[in-house]
Amino acid sequence: MEREKLKGIIPYLISPIIEKTEEVNKKVLYNLSKDLIKKGVHGLSPLGSAGEVHYLNWQQKKDIVTTVLEAADNEVPVIAGVTAFTPQEAIEQIRYYEKLGVYGVVLNINTYFQLTSNEIIQFVRKVSTSISCEVVLYNNPKFSKIDLTPDIVLELSKEKNINYFKDATGETSRLLTILNKTNDIHIFSASAHIPLTVMELGGVGWMAGPACVIPEESVRLYNLFCEKKWQEGMELQKHIWGINEIFKKYTPAKSMKASLNVLGYDVGYPLHPLSPLNEVDMQTIHEEINKIKKEIFQHK
Amino acid sequence: MEREKLKGIIPYLISPIIEKTEEVNKKVLYNLSKDLIKKGVHGLSPLGSAGEVHYLNWQQKKDIVTTVLEAADNEVPVIAGVTAFTPQEAIEQIRYYEKLGVYGVVLNINTYFQLTSNEIIQFVRKVSTSISCEVVLYNNPKFSKIDLTPDIVLELSKEKNINYFKDATGETSRLLTILNKTNDIHIFSASAHIPLTVMELGGVGWMAGPACVIPEESVRLYNLFCEKKWQEGMELQKHIWGINEIFKKYTPAKSMKASLNVLGYDVGYPLHPLSPLNEVDMQTIHEEINKIKKEIFQHK
Amino acid sequence: MEREKLKGIIPYLISPIIEKTEEVNKKVLYNLSKDLIKKGVHGLSPLGSAGEVHYLNWQQKKDIVTTVLEAADNEVPVIAGVTAFTPQEAIEQIRYYEKLGVYGVVLNINTYFQLTSNEIIQFVRKVSTSISCEVVLYNNPKFSKIDLTPDIVLELSKEKNINYFKDATGETSRLLTILNKTNDIHIFSASAHIPLTVMELGGVGWMAGPACVIPEESVRLYNLFCEKKWQEGMELQKHIWGINEIFKKYTPAKSMKASLNVLGYDVGYPLHPLSPLNEVDMQTIHEEINKIKKEIFQHK
Amino acid sequence: MEREKLKGIIPYLISPIIEKTEEVNKKVLYNLSKDLIKKGVHGLSPLGSAGEVHYLNWQQKKDIVTTVLEAADNEVPVIAGVTAFTPQEAIEQIRYYEKLGVYGVVLNINTYFQLTSNEIIQFVRKVSTSISCEVVLYNNPKFSKIDLTPDIVLELSKEKNINYFKDATGETSRLLTILNKTNDIHIFSASAHIPLTVMELGGVGWMAGPACVIPEESVRLYNLFCEKKWQEGMELQKHIWGINEIFKKYTPAKSMKASLNVLGYDVGYPLHPLSPLNEVDMQTIHEEINKIKKEIFQHK
Repeated sequence: MEREKLKGIIPYLISPIIEKTEEVNKKVLYNLSKDLIKKGVHGLSPLGSAGEVHYLNWQQKKDIVTTVLEAADNEVPVIAGVTAFTPQEAIEQIRYYEKLGVYGVVLNINTYFQLTSNEIIQFVRKVSTSISCEVVLYNNPKFSKIDLTPDIVLELSKEKNINYFKDATGETSRLLTILNKTNDIHIFSASAHIPLTVMELGGVGWMAGPACVIPEESVRLYNLFCEKKWQEGMELQKHIWGINEIFKKYTPAKSMKASLNVLGYDVGYPLHPLSPLNEVDMQTIHEEINKIKKEIFQHK
Repeated sequence: MEREKLKGIIPYLISPIIEKTEEVNKKVLYNLSKDLIKKGVHGLSPLGSAGEVHYLNWQQKKDIVTTVLEAADNEVPVIAGVTAFTPQEAIEQIRYYEKLGVYGVVLNINTYFQLTSNEIIQFVRKVSTSISCEVVLYNNPKFSKIDLTPDIVLELSKEKNINYFKDATGETSRLLTILNKTNDIHIFSASAHIPLTVMELGGVGWMAGPACVIPEESVRLYNLFCEKKWQEGMELQKHIWGINEIFKKYTPAKSMKASLNVLGYDVGYPLHPLSPLNEVDMQTIHEEINKIKKEIFQHK
Repeated sequence: MEREKLKGIIPYLISPIIEKTEEVNKKVLYNLSKDLIKKGVHGLSPLGSAGEVHYLNWQQKKDIVTTVLEAADNEVPVIAGVTAFTPQEAIEQIRYYEKLGVYGVVLNINTYFQLTSNEIIQFVRKVSTSISCEVVLYNNPKFSKIDLTPDIVLELSKEKNINYFKDATGETSRLLTILNKTNDIHIFSASAHIPLTVMELGGVGWMAGPACVIPEESVRLYNLFCEKKWQEGMELQKHIWGINEIFKKYTPAKSMKASLNVLGYDVGYPLHPLSPLNEVDMQTIHEEINKIKKEIFQHK
Repeated sequence: MEREKLKGIIPYLISPIIEKTEEVNKKVLYNLSKDLIKKGVHGLSPLGSAGEVHYLNWQQKKDIVTTVLEAADNEVPVIAGVTAFTPQEAIEQIRYYEKLGVYGVVLNINTYFQLTSNEIIQFVRKVSTSISCEVVLYNNPKFSKIDLTPDIVLELSKEKNINYFKDATGETSRLLTILNKTNDIHIFSASAHIPLTVMELGGVGWMAGPACVIPEESVRLYNLFCEKKWQEGMELQKHIWGINEIFKKYTPAKSMKASLNVLGYDVGYPLHPLSPLNEVDMQTIHEEINKIKKEIFQHK
C-alpha cells in the first residue's frame, strides 16, 4: 500500500481478552477486522482509549497490532493508539509498531502534573522527529488533562509527519478555527462531534468507536458526503446519532464491548479496573441498536 | 406586528451608559438599533449578558427596553434579556417589559447554590406560566452554573410559550440530540457555535453579539442559507468566523463595546466592575475587524 | 456598644418567610435571635447565603435586619450579609443597614463573567471606601466563582475598615499563609474548616450556620479555646463535627431550616427556587442532631 | 527491623538521573538518603510523584529502590511509590520491591476514564490482598482524577495491610471526618496541609517533599509535637511554612530538584517532559530557603 492520505471511516477496535488466560482473543479480533473491511471501512485503529489501551500489557498490545495488521493485509491502513507519560516511552512503542507495518499512530499523552503548552509541543515534536510513520494528534482534555488547543495544533502541524488531528472536545467551532488557518492538517471527526457536519466544514472522515458497531451505515454516510448528497446525508446522520448518544452515556469502552456482544462478537468484558455494564443498561443498548438499524433500513 | 416565528439574525445590543450621569445614552442606542434594522436584521435583543445586564439598575433597564422598542417601531421583534435569582424577580421584570411591548424574553437564571434539574425546571415553568410573551431558553453553564441539558430543554419545550433555545456550550452535538427528539423548540446559534452549521442542522437563526458588529454580513449569511447556497455560505462563514474568535478571546461584553467604538458608535466603556480592554487589545480588535471586512468585500 | 473587635461565635441566621404572605416571620426570627444571645453567642449575622439572601427581596431584607437589630438590642454586634453584582448595588444596601445600626457587613460578590484579581480588588475597595462600617471579606469560590486568594486578601487588608476574613474553601493552609504575612486581618473559621484548629492557628472565632443550631456547644468550644484547654476542646470539637458534616451533605440553607424546625422553631421551608429536603433526609438530620447533643451531654 | 508503626518525618526523595546516560545517579541518591537519616528522619519514600515516578522506566525504578534500601540499611523503613493503570501492573512492581525489602508502598492509581467508587475500592483491594507489605493510601484528586473520599478510605481501612492514609486535597476537615470514624487508619500530613495541625488532630507524621529540603527543622517540629510543646511547635511551623508555599507555587517535582541543587546536591534537572525552572524562579527559591533557614536559626 503506497502512502496516500487517510480519509473516510476508520473504526476504533475493541481489545478482546480471554478472561482466564489474559491472552488476546485473536480469532475474534481477526474476524471483526475482516468483517469491517468487507463492509467498506477505510482503515482500522486498534489500541485507542475505547480499546482500553491503558489497561493492556505490552504483550497484549503487540498481539493486537499484529493480528489487526494480518487482517488488514495491506488493504486498509492500520493506525495504532499509543499512550505514554514520556516521549521515550512513546517512541519505543511506535518503533516496534512501525516494524510490524502500521501506517501511523494516534498519540495520546498521559500526564500527572499539568504540562505547559511548550512542554506539550516539545513532547510531541520529540516523538514525531524520532519516528517516520504518521502521527495523528488526538485531543481529549476531559480524560487526559492535556488540551491540544488550536494554537498547539497549528504549531505541530508544521512537522512533516503530523498531518491529522482528531478532537474529542465536542466544540465544533475549534475545528473551523484550525481549518481557517492551515491546510497542513486534516481533521477527523470524533464521536463527540457530528461527523457529517465536520466533513462539510472540511474534515476528511470519522475515526470513532461507533463506526465499529455500525460500519455499513457509517460508510454510507461518508459516501453521501463525497457525492455531495448532503441533505440525504443529514437524514442518515440523524438516525445514526443515537449510537453516539449511547457511547456518551455509557462511556466508549463499555459501550463498544456491550454493543459488539449484542451483534454476536464474543469480545468479552471490559478490562480491570473497569466494571461491566449491568443487565438493564445492556438491554437498553440492545434495544437502541435494533431500533437504529430498523430506522435506517426503513429509511433506505 | 402579528405573532410570527422568530428567525434570522437577532443581534444582542450593548448598553451605552453615560459615565458621569449613569444614564442610558438613548441617542446612541436608538441610532445603533435603527442602523441594524436598516441593514436587515430580523430582531433586536437588548439586556443580554453581552449587554452587561448584570451591571445595570432597574431604571437603566427600563430606559434601554423603551428606547429599543421605539427604534424597532414594530418593524422587528424585540426580545429583552432577563436575569434573576428567583422566579418572582423574573416575573416582575417580564410583566413590565410585556406592557412596554416586547415580543419575548431571553431567560438567564442567576444562582448561588447549585440547582437540581427539577429546581431548574420548576423555576422556568413558574416564570413561563405567569407571563404571556415568548420565553427563549438560554444555556451558558460556563458563566451561569446552570446547565440546561437536552433533557431539561425537552421537558420545558412542552410549555406553550417556550419555543426557542439558544445554547452557548459550543458543543454542537447537543443541538442535534434535541432536534432529533422534538419539533417543539426552535434553535438559535450562539457565537460559540458555527451559525451556518447550526442552521444546516435545523436551526432557525443566529442570536449573538457579533451580529451587532457585522450585521450586513450576518444577514447575507442567513440569506445564503435560506437560498440553499450552502457552499457559498460556508465561504462567507469562514471569513466571518474571525469575529467570533475575537469575542471568545476578549469576552463578549468588552469586545462589543470596543468593536462598536471602532465602528464610530460612542458606546462608552464597559460597566463596573468590568475594566476596559487595554490599548494593545483595542488595536488588535480594530485591525481584525478591518481585515475581516476587507476579506468579505473582496470575496463578494 | 462601642467599637471593639469581633470575635467568638457568630451564628448565621436563617430567613423565616411566611409562605402565604411572603412576609418575614418576625416573631420567630426575634425569638431565635434572643435565644441565641441568651446562650452566649458573640454576634448575629443575618442575610448570609445560608440565610438565602439571594432569594429575598428588598423589603424582606430590610425587615430581617431591623428585627435582628431589635433583638440584639446593642448587646451583641449585628453583621448583615450583602450580595451584589456591582459596587453601587452593594453600597446602597450597606448605607441603609448602617443607618439601621449594623456593626458591619459580610460582602459577597455576585458575578457572571469571571473577574480579574484587579477587578475584584477595585470592587471591594470601592465599597469599603464608600461606607464606614466594617467589611468582613468572605470567600466561597465554589459557589460565587470569585476566589479571594491570599494575595487579594492581603492587599485588601490595608483598608481601614477591612479587618476580618472568612474563608470557605476548606483549605486550612490558606489561612496560615495569610496569618504569616499580616496582622491587619482577623480570621474567622467557616464550617468547611475545623473551628478549633483555625483558632489555634490564630483565628478569632467561628462564623457559620451550624453555630445557629448548637449555640451552647459552640460557645463552650470557644471558651475552652480561650482558657487554653485545647485538648479538652478537641474532644468537644470532634463531637460537634457531625453538624458540619450534615451542613456539607445537605447544603447550609436546607440543613439550617430543617435543623431549626427539628429544634422547635417554625422557620418554614427553603425559599424558591430551592426545594425542601425529603422526609428521609429530614429524619436523618433529626437523628444526627439528637445523637450529637446526647454525646456532648455524656461528655460533659 | 521489626514491623512497628510508621510515624514521624518521611521525606519523599527526588530521582537524580544522569542526563547523558539516563542512568540513576546512585551516589547522589545514596548520599542524600544517608544525610537525611543522620538528620533524624523516620523513613524514606522514593518514587513519589515529586520523585517524578511517572517519567522513570523500570530499570531506573529498580535502581532507585535498591539504592535507597542500601542507604537505609534497616535503620529506617523505606516506602516506595507505585503508580499503575491496572491492579496487575501495581502488583508486579510491588512484589519486586517487596523482595528488595521495602516496608510498604504508597499507591497512586493512574486513570484515563473516571472510575466509580466501587471500581476504585476493588482496584486497591485487589492490590492489597495480593501482596503482604503495607499499602499507604494516597489521595491527590487534582492530579490523579481519583478522589479517595472519606467513605472510600473508611471502607479500605478494613484491609489488614492498609493502615495509612495521606491526603493532598488540602481540606483538613476531611481528616477529622475520617479520624472521627475509625482507629484503623493512621494519617500522615501532606504538604497541602499544615503538618503540626494534622498531628494535633490525631495524625502520626508528615510525608512530603519539603521534609527532604529541611529535614532537621521537620524533625524538630515532630519532636515538639511529641513533647506536647504545641505553642512552640506552632512558632516553628509558621517559619517552615514558606517551604510549603514554594512547593505549591512551583510544583513539587520542580521545586525539589531546584532546592536540592541550591543545597549542594547534584540532582540534575527535572525529567522529560517537565522543563526546568527559569533563572529568576531558581533565584527566588534560593533566597527563600536561605531566609527560612536564617529565621529558624534566629528563632532557636
